Amino acid sequence: MKQIRLNAFDMNCPGHIQQGMWRHSRDRSADYLNLDYWTGLARILERGLFDGLFLADVLGVYDVYQGSPDPAIRGAVQVPVNDPMLLIPAMAAATRHLGFGVTANLSFEPPYAFARRMSTLDHLSRGRVGWNIVTGYLDSAARAMGLERQRAHDDRYDVADEYMELVYALWEGSWADGAVVRDRETGVYADPALVRPVRHQGAHFQMDAIHLCEPSPQRTPVLYQAGSSERGRQFAARHAECVFVNGTSKPMVAAIVAAIREAAVARGRDPTDILVFVGATIVAGATDAQAEAKFRDYQRYADREGALAHASASLGIDLARYGPDDPIRMVKTDAIVSNLQAIATRRPDRAITKRELTDSFALGGRQTPIVGGPERIADELQAWVRETDVDGFVLARTVTPECFEDFAELVVPRLQARGLYKEAYAEGTLRQKLFPGHAARLPASHPAASHRR
Amino acid sequence: MKQIRLNAFDMNCPGHIQQGMWRHSRDRSADYLNLDYWTGLARILERGLFDGLFLADVLGVYDVYQGSPDPAIRGAVQVPVNDPMLLIPAMAAATRHLGFGVTANLSFEPPYAFARRMSTLDHLSRGRVGWNIVTGYLDSAARAMGLERQRAHDDRYDVADEYMELVYALWEGSWADGAVVRDRETGVYADPALVRPVRHQGAHFQMDAIHLCEPSPQRTPVLYQAGSSERGRQFAARHAECVFVNGTSKPMVAAIVAAIREAAVARGRDPTDILVFVGATIVAGATDAQAEAKFRDYQRYADREGALAHASASLGIDLARYGPDDPIRMVKTDAIVSNLQAIATRRPDRAITKRELTDSFALGGRQTPIVGGPERIADELQAWVRETDVDGFVLARTVTPECFEDFAELVVPRLQARGLYKEAYAEGTLRQKLFPGHAARLPASHPAASHRR
Repeated sequence: MKQIRLNAFDMNCPGHIQQGMWRHSRDRSADYLNLDYWTGLARILERGLFDGLFLADVLGVYDVYQGSPDPAIRGAVQVPVNDPMLLIPAMAAATRHLGFGVTANLSFEPPYAFARRMSTLDHLSRGRVGWNIVTGYLDSAARAMGLERQRAHDDRYDVADEYMELVYALWEGSWADGAVVRDRETGVYADPALVRPVRHQGAHFQMDAIHLCEPSPQRTPVLYQAGSSERGRQFAARHAECVFVNGTSKPMVAAIVAAIREAAVARGRDPTDILVFVGATIVAGATDAQAEAKFRDYQRYADREGALAHASASLGIDLARYGPDDPIRMVKTDAIVSNLQAIATRRPDRAITKRELTDSFALGGRQTPIVGGPERIADELQAWVRETDVDGFVLARTVTPECFEDFAELVVPRLQARGLYKEAYAEGTLRQKLFPGHAARLPASHPAASHRR
Repeated sequence: MKQIRLNAFDMNCPGHIQQGMWRHSRDRSADYLNLDYWTGLARILERGLFDGLFLADVLGVYDVYQGSPDPAIRGAVQVPVNDPMLLIPAMAAATRHLGFGVTANLSFEPPYAFARRMSTLDHLSRGRVGWNIVTGYLDSAARAMGLERQRAHDDRYDVADEYMELVYALWEGSWADGAVVRDRETGVYADPALVRPVRHQGAHFQMDAIHLCEPSPQRTPVLYQAGSSERGRQFAARHAECVFVNGTSKPMVAAIVAAIREAAVARGRDPTDILVFVGATIVAGATDAQAEAKFRDYQRYADREGALAHASASLGIDLARYGPDDPIRMVKTDAIVSNLQAIATRRPDRAITKRELTDSFALGGRQTPIVGGPERIADELQAWVRETDVDGFVLARTVTPECFEDFAELVVPRLQARGLYKEAYAEGTLRQKLFPGHAARLPASHPAASHRR
C-alpha cells in the first residue's frame, strides 16, 4: 500500500477553520504574531516527518453574514490575517526538510514581482516551496483593490491560465541551465547569451523583461490547487501537482480522485504526477476514551456565530436569513460547489439544513472529525487511502499546536509500524520528496516544460 | 556631541554598489542565496550595535550602457536580485535589537497587500521594521510590468503622496487602539465598533476595506527616503523620518542637511524628527598601513565595466558613447541629480569626465572611501558629524561581511571611547531606538497622525 503523505493546514491568523479554538487555554494560535510560535510549529512538524506545512490565506474579510464584517471581526474568523509568505524564511531557517505550501491569490499579485518572491523563497528554503494557486472569490477583496467586484468565475481562470504561462516563462525559460557561471577569475557571473527576456503580449498581461532571479532548485515551485468546479478541475488537471479535496463520503471522494487523475491523463500527464490530498480533522488521544474526552472539551469552545460568518462567506449566502431547519439552496459558484459538495456528501438524500451546516462548520468544518486512539485513527486513514485512492491528508488545526504534537507522537509511530509512513525524509527538494524518483524540477509532460530551451 | 547612528547597506544580490567585489576570495556576497549568510550578517551587525541593516532593491535591470542588459548580467550588477523583504523574518528571528530598513517600490506594490506585508514584518520583528520609499526610475522595470515606460518623475511623486495617505489610513486609522480585546472568556477577539474601513476615491487609487492586520508595535514602519530632487525633497520633508544623502564634500552635504531640516520645519515638524544619514565606504584596518594595503587589495577586484553599466543606468545616459576625457553632460532627472551631484562635489569647478566617473563608481561609488586605522576613521566620522550635522552613516559593503566585521571590531570601540556611539541598544521599537524619548509610533506632528481617531 502506498505511503501516506501529510500536510499540516494552518493560516497566519488566530481563527482558521475551527472557529473559536483560540479561546482554549492550551491553544496558542493567538501567538501568531510571534516568530517563536512558527519556528516551534515547524520543528514539531519536522519531528513528525510531515511533508509540508500548508498555509491558507485570504485577502478580504467575511462580510456576507448579516451583511457585515462585524461577526467575523468579533470572533477572529480569518481576520486579522497576516501575510503567510513572510513566515516561511524563519521556518526554513529552523528546519531542514519540511516543505512549505503557501497560498497566493494571483488576482492581486503582479506576476513579475510575484515570480521573484517565489524564486527567492525557493532559493532560501533550498527548494522546499510550493504555491497554492487561488484566484480569490470575495468581493470584499476586490473592493480593497479598488474594483467593484470580482471577475466572473470562469474569467478568473482564463486570467489564471495566462498568468501561469507568464510565470512559467520567467521560472523555466528566462535563465537557461548553465547561465550562471560565477567565475571569480574571469569576473563573469552569468553568461548573457543564456539569459533571455520574456516577451508577452496577451489579453490580460504584457511583459518584456528577464526574470530577476537566477534559477532556484525547483525553478517552478510545487503547484497546489484546490478548485473543485468543472473549470477549476480543468485548471488543476493542466497545472497542479498536488490537489486538495474535501468530502466526508469515501465513495464521493473516490469519484473525485478518479476524475482528477483521468483529466490529467487526458492532457498527456501521468496519473501519478498528481497527488490528491483530502482534508481531515483529527483528534488523537492515547486511547479512544481519552481522545473522545478531548474532543468534547474542544467542542465546548466551538464558536457557532463565527462558524456562520465563515460558512456564509464560503457559500456566498447570508445564513442569517435562514431558520434553523430551512434547507440551504444550492448556488453554483466555485466556492459554493466546493463547500456544499463536501457537506452534502453526508446527506446525499436531501438538502442540508442551516442547523446541520452550522454544526458541521462549528467543529470539523468540511470533514467528519476522526477521533480516537492511534489504532482507530490509523485504521480510518488506511481505509480512506484504500477506498478513495487519495495520496494523503491535510490536517486542519484544532487546538494548536497540540493537535499536531498529538498526531506526531501518537499516530505517526502506528502508521510507521504498518509500513504506511516514511521512517525518514528523502533527500532533495520538496518535489523530490513528494514524488520519489522525480527530478527537482517539473517533468517534461508538464506544460511549464514547454518554456525550456 | 550627538551619538552616531549606523546603518549597514546591503542588497539581496551578489553585486551591490562596489562592482566586482564578489570576485574577492574572502567575499561571501555570492552566498546571498543562503539563509545562513543573512542570519550570520545580522548577528555581526547586532554585535556591533548597528542601528539597522538597510536593504536596497531594484525592480528591473540596468540596460542603458551599450543599450543592453548584457554587461550588467555578465558582471552581476544588481542582477540577479532577489526579493529583500523575505530576508527579514529569518534575520529578525536571529536577533533582538537590529532594525531592518527595506526598500519597496510603491509603483509596483498594490497598497492593500503591501500594507499587510509591512504590518506582518512589524509584528514578526516586534517593531523593528523600516520602509525606504522609492518610486522607481527604470524603464526596464516599467516594461516588466507591462507598461511602455515609467511615469514622469514628478507624477510619480504625486502618485506616491496619494499612496502614502492610503497606507497611513490602513496602518494608523483602521484599527483603533483598544480594538483588540482577545478575551478568551467572552470569545471576543476584536471589537468591531473600533475597526473601520478605509474608504478612498482618489485620482490613482480606490479602496473600501479594513486593514487586514491588527495594530503592530510601530503601526507605520520607520519611513526612509533618499530622493534628492526638489520634488523628492518635498516628499521627504513631509513623510520621511530618516533621509539618506550622498556627497563627498562636507560643505555641500551640510547645505543639504540644513535644507532638509528647514523643509521639515516649514511643514510643522521638529528638525530633530528627521535623521540624516550620509553614505560612506569605509575600509578599516588595525593600523592605517594595514587598511591601505587592504584597500589596494580590494581595488584589484574592482570591475570597471560593471561600474559603467551601473553608472549609465543611474545617470540615464549611455557612457559607452563617451570618450575617456569627455565631460559628462548634466541631465535633470531624480537619479541623475542625486548621483552626479554626489560625484560632482569632488570637482565643483568643472564637469566630471567619463574617466573620473568610472574611477569613482569602480570603488567608492558616490563616496570618497575612508581608509585607515581606528583613529583615523573615528576622526573622519567625527569631522563629518561636526561639519555637516548628519546624524549617522550608511556603510556600503565592500568585501562582505568582513567590511562590517572590521568596522564592528576596530572602529566601534574607538567611537564608544570617545562617547560618540552607544554602549548598548535602547529598549523598544526601531523608532524608539532611533529617536530617544519618542513613542513607538509616529509623533502627532507627522501627517500620518491625522488618520488616527
